[in-house]
Amino acid sequence: MSDAKPKILIQLDGDTQASTFDAVVAADAGVDHLLRHHGVRPEEVRDLVHGAIFTRAADQLNRTAIFVGGSDVTAGESLLAEVCRTFFGPMRVSVMMDSSGANTTAAAAVLAAEAHVPLRGATVLVLAATGPVGRRVAHLLAGEGAEVRAASRSLDRARAVCETVATRIPRAKIGPWIASTPQETAAAAQGCRIVIAAGVPGVELMPADVRRQCRDLVTAIDLNAVPPAGLEGVDPRDRATNRDGVTCYGALGIGATKMKIHKAAIRKLFESNDQVLDVDEIFALARSL
Amino acid sequence: MSDAKPKILIQLDGDTQASTFDAVVAADAGVDHLLRHHGVRPEEVRDLVHGAIFTRAADQLNRTAIFVGGSDVTAGESLLAEVCRTFFGPMRVSVMMDSSGANTTAAAAVLAAEAHVPLRGATVLVLAATGPVGRRVAHLLAGEGAEVRAASRSLDRARAVCETVATRIPRAKIGPWIASTPQETAAAAQGCRIVIAAGVPGVELMPADVRRQCRDLVTAIDLNAVPPAGLEGVDPRDRATNRDGVTCYGALGIGATKMKIHKAAIRKLFESNDQVLDVDEIFALARSL
Amino acid sequence: MSDAKPKILIQLDGDTQASTFDAVVAADAGVDHLLRHHGVRPEEVRDLVHGAIFTRAADQLNRTAIFVGGSDVTAGESLLAEVCRTFFGPMRVSVMMDSSGANTTAAAAVLAAEAHVPLRGATVLVLAATGPVGRRVAHLLAGEGAEVRAASRSLDRARAVCETVATRIPRAKIGPWIASTPQETAAAAQGCRIVIAAGVPGVELMPADVRRQCRDLVTAIDLNAVPPAGLEGVDPRDRATNRDGVTCYGALGIGATKMKIHKAAIRKLFESNDQVLDVDEIFALARSL
Repeated sequence: MSDAKPKILIQLDGDTQASTFDAVVAADAGVDHLLRHHGVRPEEVRDLVHGAIFTRAADQLNRTAIFVGGSDVTAGESLLAEVCRTFFGPMRVSVMMDSSGANTTAAAAVLAAEAHVPLRGATVLVLAATGPVGRRVAHLLAGEGAEVRAASRSLDRARAVCETVATRIPRAKIGPWIASTPQETAAAAQGCRIVIAAGVPGVELMPADVRRQCRDLVTAIDLNAVPPAGLEGVDPRDRATNRDGVTCYGALGIGATKMKIHKAAIRKLFESNDQVLDVDEIFALARSL
Repeated sequence: MSDAKPKILIQLDGDTQASTFDAVVAADAGVDHLLRHHGVRPEEVRDLVHGAIFTRAADQLNRTAIFVGGSDVTAGESLLAEVCRTFFGPMRVSVMMDSSGANTTAAAAVLAAEAHVPLRGATVLVLAATGPVGRRVAHLLAGEGAEVRAASRSLDRARAVCETVATRIPRAKIGPWIASTPQETAAAAQGCRIVIAAGVPGVELMPADVRRQCRDLVTAIDLNAVPPAGLEGVDPRDRATNRDGVTCYGALGIGATKMKIHKAAIRKLFESNDQVLDVDEIFALARSL
Repeated sequence: MSDAKPKILIQLDGDTQASTFDAVVAADAGVDHLLRHHGVRPEEVRDLVHGAIFTRAADQLNRTAIFVGGSDVTAGESLLAEVCRTFFGPMRVSVMMDSSGANTTAAAAVLAAEAHVPLRGATVLVLAATGPVGRRVAHLLAGEGAEVRAASRSLDRARAVCETVATRIPRAKIGPWIASTPQETAAAAQGCRIVIAAGVPGVELMPADVRRQCRDLVTAIDLNAVPPAGLEGVDPRDRATNRDGVTCYGALGIGATKMKIHKAAIRKLFESNDQVLDVDEIFALARSL
């Protein structure tokens, strides 16, 4: 057993500038050296991973880890796949994927929901379920046994998400809903105990009067921080705020939990050299905090 | 109040490689993590600043700061403007701008001059006053109440500098002078107690015999380190060196003070989260050292 | 004498992403701040070196150093030349060149050979002597007084290598050999006590039966880690492994020594500010470990 080596985190980011957000969180999680890479393309991943796995003794590989970030979630998924493909046998380091904060945000949102409504059997509406955060929220909810309504302006895209979720979670109870008008959104929300809005910034997904008509609604979560709100009337700073009898969360209210999860996940990377922290692992970690 | 977080400095640099000069000074000023960015364009600034202001609690925002550098001062001014535009309310971190070392160099030069001649009412010639350092030297001198002669090979550009200075400092005593020949330079220097040459490297701005004819001259400062000297006969290493009865400073002689100012300014960034260290603030800091 | 400053290593890398391998080794060698630069072109070197030599007092210049890496050895040689050209008088910092690991790998291979056969007067075959590692192996062997057979598929290129080595080491005993077929390789190996294969990954340079026919062979070293082996029958993990009466080393067996040399060389950079660690200096260091 050699002396403990400095903690090194390799930041792989596809954007033209590597995220300072991810770097500050890493520093605050106790990383000693940040090796930051921007504009990373999948074909560059192999050499970068080799530098991680071929430089330290087996008992010190848990002191090197990889973080896949960047704003483009699809690009991040490709980078993560390439990272994992490069590992072989015990020659690996732990890796976390959180492009655009999608995994930590989805985990924080579902955790907030679960604090108010037991998820098993609960009917939950996910608005903009076809986006990167929405897909993860739908996936986590289905995994917990909720009855998920995956809503989108396009029924076809909603169906595609349901199929993906069902492939990974065969017992999933999930169905596609269209929500392109207030009327359709009201219909989709009928009977739901939880609504989670995961749309792009600045797009209203549910008017306040539709929300007020949802008699079974216990918790409403809006992940959009830029006005107008995704759920009209929910403030970004809401954190278990009572509005019309419903417990509401806004993006900043969820954000505090998201930051804790992100930081804890970075710390966890250095506990062993064989972890892949994607959405399920990050949610499990979030719950354990 | 949480524990003190590591000191993070975000280096924004528009050049193809981020300055190692600025990085070494930052390390020597006690920064724990340097987040270095090169080729930064104004449209990339917003996300980089968001990563600075959205990652730490309010009482820890003074542990994150931004340094705007790079060789292009105009580009640096744009980046600084964009950084400040992104801040809102208490959501800000301290920022320093010193592209091409222009602010710290100008501050060091004016500080050296003031050590020998009280600036209020003193007639001062600034050669190449239209360059990034020259403009700052003229600005600082005018702010201290000197009678500034802003000289250039182009009278039009000298006038433009005077107008800019006068706009920012309404009480400024500053006028444009042409200095495209030794005769014109001699005329501009007539009656001056201080001459500061702020030209580009390797361009002579004043022959030695012109300098020797300046009867009222007390201090001569040359900010050009590359032969030939801006002020002929002044050595880059001069540091209060007596030449023909005049106290002379060369670029390296000023450089030692410049380095101290630069380092002190980086340290000061971490005292609070609301500072903008541009030319005036850096000069005030320089004086307090 | 001022207080000891943090150890800063400036990593100059011509690739599109700076090597993580070199960065991890630097961190493990105790570097405090890594200033990493990718895509470095020779014309960018001057400013990067100026930032190293103009920022700290003379007695602290040994706390800043430069590492030239990247996968392209020729590009690395250009960068190193440019770094050294920028130094003047005492204004310098120590620099190490190890693009593609060529210097540390060559040093480790020759060190392994020398553990089994005194090099002076020993006949040694270098296969693929025209590649970056092969040229360095041939150079080191010649410097130690071995009789070097520099083999290549092209006799012209083998001759060019011999001329280069002879120019630098006038007493060198080195001659060109062609080895484009098993028969030619067998002829070249006749009478050799050491064979070192320095070819590109995945290319077999000597069949096992040719190796077994080398009656004088004591040590065989294969620097290729990717199947098929450069020396058929030698395993990458071989480390003084006896095969058919010959002491064999594979790429990973040599790699452990290479890592130690690399790390020791980084540490050595910070002992003074005037070292240039290229192949000869790295081999001398390797021997002293």
